[in-house]
Amino acid sequence: MIMLSHPAKTGIVTLDTRPVPRQTGVNMKYSNAFIPTLREVPADAVIASHRLMFRAGMIRKLANGLFAYLPLGLRSFRKVERIVREEMDAIGALEIKPTVVLPGEIWKESGRWDSMGDGMLRAKNRLDNDFVVSPTAEEAFTAIVRDELSSYRQLPLSLYQINTKFRDEIRPRYGVMRGREFVMKDAYSWHPDEQSLDETYQAMGRAYRRIFKRCGLSVIPVKADSGAMGGSGSEEFMVESEIGDNTLILCKGCDYAANVEKAGCAPDFAGGESAGQGSLADVPPYEKIDTPNVKTIEELCGFVKNTDGSAMNPAQFIKTLIYRAINVELDLSNAPGCKNLEQKKIGQDAASSKGGAVYPEAFFAVAIRGDLDLNETKLAALVKASEVGLASDADVVRLTGAPVGFAGPVGLDSLPVIADLTVTGMKDAVTGALAKDLHYRHVAYGRDFAPWMTGDLRIVKAGDACALCGGELFEKKGNELGHIFKLGYKYTSSMNVSYLDENGKSQTPTMGCYGIGVDRALASVIEEHHDEAGIVWPVSVAPYHVVIVPIKYDGAVKDAADRLYGELEKAGIEVLLDDRNERPGVKFNDADLVGIPWRVLVGDKGLAQSPPAVEIKRRSEKENRMVELEAAAGELAQKIREELALLKG
Amino acid sequence: MIMLSHPAKTGIVTLDTRPVPRQTGVNMKYSNAFIPTLREVPADAVIASHRLMFRAGMIRKLANGLFAYLPLGLRSFRKVERIVREEMDAIGALEIKPTVVLPGEIWKESGRWDSMGDGMLRAKNRLDNDFVVSPTAEEAFTAIVRDELSSYRQLPLSLYQINTKFRDEIRPRYGVMRGREFVMKDAYSWHPDEQSLDETYQAMGRAYRRIFKRCGLSVIPVKADSGAMGGSGSEEFMVESEIGDNTLILCKGCDYAANVEKAGCAPDFAGGESAGQGSLADVPPYEKIDTPNVKTIEELCGFVKNTDGSAMNPAQFIKTLIYRAINVELDLSNAPGCKNLEQKKIGQDAASSKGGAVYPEAFFAVAIRGDLDLNETKLAALVKASEVGLASDADVVRLTGAPVGFAGPVGLDSLPVIADLTVTGMKDAVTGALAKDLHYRHVAYGRDFAPWMTGDLRIVKAGDACALCGGELFEKKGNELGHIFKLGYKYTSSMNVSYLDENGKSQTPTMGCYGIGVDRALASVIEEHHDEAGIVWPVSVAPYHVVIVPIKYDGAVKDAADRLYGELEKAGIEVLLDDRNERPGVKFNDADLVGIPWRVLVGDKGLAQSPPAVEIKRRSEKENRMVELEAAAGELAQKIREELALLKG
Repeated sequence: MIMLSHPAKTGIVTLDTRPVPRQTGVNMKYSNAFIPTLREVPADAVIASHRLMFRAGMIRKLANGLFAYLPLGLRSFRKVERIVREEMDAIGALEIKPTVVLPGEIWKESGRWDSMGDGMLRAKNRLDNDFVVSPTAEEAFTAIVRDELSSYRQLPLSLYQINTKFRDEIRPRYGVMRGREFVMKDAYSWHPDEQSLDETYQAMGRAYRRIFKRCGLSVIPVKADSGAMGGSGSEEFMVESEIGDNTLILCKGCDYAANVEKAGCAPDFAGGESAGQGSLADVPPYEKIDTPNVKTIEELCGFVKNTDGSAMNPAQFIKTLIYRAINVELDLSNAPGCKNLEQKKIGQDAASSKGGAVYPEAFFAVAIRGDLDLNETKLAALVKASEVGLASDADVVRLTGAPVGFAGPVGLDSLPVIADLTVTGMKDAVTGALAKDLHYRHVAYGRDFAPWMTGDLRIVKAGDACALCGGELFEKKGNELGHIFKLGYKYTSSMNVSYLDENGKSQTPTMGCYGIGVDRALASVIEEHHDEAGIVWPVSVAPYHVVIVPIKYDGAVKDAADRLYGELEKAGIEVLLDDRNERPGVKFNDADLVGIPWRVLVGDKGLAQSPPAVEIKRRSEKENRMVELEAAAGELAQKIREELALLKG
Repeated sequence: MIMLSHPAKTGIVTLDTRPVPRQTGVNMKYSNAFIPTLREVPADAVIASHRLMFRAGMIRKLANGLFAYLPLGLRSFRKVERIVREEMDAIGALEIKPTVVLPGEIWKESGRWDSMGDGMLRAKNRLDNDFVVSPTAEEAFTAIVRDELSSYRQLPLSLYQINTKFRDEIRPRYGVMRGREFVMKDAYSWHPDEQSLDETYQAMGRAYRRIFKRCGLSVIPVKADSGAMGGSGSEEFMVESEIGDNTLILCKGCDYAANVEKAGCAPDFAGGESAGQGSLADVPPYEKIDTPNVKTIEELCGFVKNTDGSAMNPAQFIKTLIYRAINVELDLSNAPGCKNLEQKKIGQDAASSKGGAVYPEAFFAVAIRGDLDLNETKLAALVKASEVGLASDADVVRLTGAPVGFAGPVGLDSLPVIADLTVTGMKDAVTGALAKDLHYRHVAYGRDFAPWMTGDLRIVKAGDACALCGGELFEKKGNELGHIFKLGYKYTSSMNVSYLDENGKSQTPTMGCYGIGVDRALASVIEEHHDEAGIVWPVSVAPYHVVIVPIKYDGAVKDAADRLYGELEKAGIEVLLDDRNERPGVKFNDADLVGIPWRVLVGDKGLAQSPPAVEIKRRSEKENRMVELEAAAGELAQKIREELALLKG
């Protein structure tokens, strides 16, 4: 038989509030830290930041695309976070904290429950309620503001959060550079008018530049397409990266920079006989030519000859593509073939002018020079469509009267024709004749056809000429660290946000949104600041400012190291003291790998000097120098403050 | 035809890093703030903290159980968070940041994928991977440590996070006091032995006391059952609350405090003739009595009479309940009726002694005095079961040979009999006779039956006697703010964590875990510190220390208010300046509602005094007094620092 002691006794407690022996939360002895540095690199770590964050014991992988920050990584992470917070506060944005798990209802209101796709992690609880693990928070912020906004006096209003996001990347990789879960600073602003929105947008742009500068990041600000977010007026902040998922178009001659999705170039009327030189009077009337089974530009080049018998080149052809566009906002009431096109009201505020109507489906013929590719993002922006894509073969036959490969702008009046700007200079071109196995030659823009609309629709490539300075454009791969854009009325309209203006009239505010990926910014700092030995932190985001390395943590060396540690701590400097019982080489390697900006070596030799000295070395420099022990803390503190001030600008 | 301006121009950007006009991130003018105070209270806000957080513009509801913190609420929230962080850092715990969305795999490893139930929010992504929105993080931390731990030299190790959690409360209510999403500080520690675990456990206990004290919270630390978390040795930190979901047993005579689930009391042999007084020799031999269709204690009291003809009372009966227990770890090899009971290995480390075996199912007869109720939590702890519940009617018939209502300990040898301590004092009791419609009377413990095991199994109630001082126990409702406990080997064993000890032998570490609900702590501060007018913040967690209320923000009053604002800012004091064009009454009401500890009224009258003066009022006091404008900032700063120091202890 088991007899238990009376369990009531386990309930005895007394409120003991004696101060506990305190370590400091800022500074740290290595033996109390948790910095599991490694020599090996995981096989999937192909970029420097992923390799180094892993090796320096900053992160560990929990699952594909899910990373835990260990203490050292979290320290740097929090510093980036703090810089972002300070700069947001400085321009009057107010921090709030919505939930990470958001109710599905608000996503249904905005329409993104359906449009966000599989990247959004959804969950149902036991009551069958729909939830979303926040991939972004336009809806949540708009829902909060909707209930509080009543008067124009409350505007403009800028709110932000720095909080967890989840996007189910199909192929998460590159460590925290492209993880599934990450932390984003997302800000949203509401305004009575475009001017107010623009002021905040510009202030955000300046704050972003300061944030990246303070982190030691070289960013390339580019005008960007705003993609699925809707609205217009946007700027992306890119860092160069060989694994970047954006292609940037940059100019060798000036500071022009754009995302290829939106990049323009100088008008260019190259293309031999079809080009803009010479008089239109010299061009013969256009005529039909038989082109049996010849459909592609390449086939045509071999088949149709110039008048001098030479082979034609692709720039002499007008390529005409039939596009289907979804939710077109552009007014098509006067467009060819669109008289009976149905419109649909959009937004819950559809009655107001800001809601408006769209054509759920519309078709366009897009004419572009044969040597160029069409930029679908530009096309979608031009016709104000949510999406564009090549029409089906059946639609092509129905609209052009001919199978795919024989469309052309001449005589085409069953749908609106849109011509790329390059086409406007073409005077002697070959193009499809709207009938099987037939093309026209000697076609001249303006004389033989007039498009309903023209615009810049080409994909700009390296080698094209800069529109600003004529310089040669080149390409770079870039990663997006931040994005600011003017959303307009998309959410305020669909989610019914309103306020009373000066005249007591109900109005819908316009909106902006502004994001920065904190993890990605941190990883990008490492991409930009590292060498073969490890990370080379800018002092602003270094996990510690100084590492003290005693040759042996014992006797006079220990005393001197402890003294320095205390003095630096007092000066507000963040110090790591490597008190481990390891060889100096091991400590040096770890210090270099972990990348602390300043290293102080405390050894018997230096201390034996008169006056006693320690060796100071900057991580980014090869040279070291001896400094009096007496003066070392003061000098380091001074240097670190100067560097911080320099980054802050 | 629409001609677009050449879009290339939109790509022009220059890096403008001019300092922006800076507001401060700490101090704030009311007109720049977002503090939507309200008079109305939502219908579902039944407790003070919910009502006041809503009215003071601290929180807003996004959905049932999901709350957004607005700027004012977030400021106080961050202060609680910071106090927690400082005290964790002070005892050497290291902060890390795992993901909020965790891979399902590690929950399957620990076995909690199945056992956590519907409170855990699960999600599947497009690749059909299982995810969990973290309700707690034993698995995640253990998985991280498992990969890094190699040597005893790394132990003890304490890690923590302050991060988002989600638990799908069936009935979320009381605002952030019981929301679905919340922020928890959860710490976990690993140790080579019980002594090391106990040292950290004690340090955590002291840190928790300091945390709550610094927040201005009166907590009741109670020994608690560790519930589904497994392990033993735990303490809960409770605050009194009428809507608390815990019942606490407290003593009027001493500081005994326990959760009712684990509370004990003084042995108590009350119960008239059946009680411990008198000699066993005076008790007649036990005998059968017919009790046709009499099954319940109440029915028996009316039916069976004392020898003097008086009605019996419930304390004269031995109630015998048949329990089914799941996953019993207690060794039953010598227990009656258990010879052939099947055992099952548990844990992946089942080969080691720490894994061990359980009986998937076992039955017990539990005897307790008729006037008492059985505490199932105590029973589960006594037999080391994961779960206990009343056996089915069929099992009762099979095991006792009689229908429900006629079980008794006399002659019962088909299963182990466990007697509550009160039964050990019963000498002349009535109990079931293991046959339909039959009972025994004159049953004496020890003489007529001997249980296999005894233990404290009663539910302690108000009025019972304290085991420590004999004082009267009473009940309070409480809410749990924090919980520390020794987990033991549950996770380290099931998830295969090991290290090499001093002798190079592989060992499994033991583990502790320690949680604090940040949102709930914040709400509890308001529960404890408010009056009819609003919140009365302790200075340590107040969103601002001082609110300056200019009678009218104009002329000399504005100048004086601005001057004070600047001086306080310089002194590091957090100030809100109510520069709104509102009546003083409105500003006073908002200041009281929002609960800023100190209010400074700047008015013409005071400034007209010689020397000019302002009125200072503490939120917690009725009186105000005039202070020279010159000295006001200094005095306030002094008082605030003193109060902070006092809370810090």
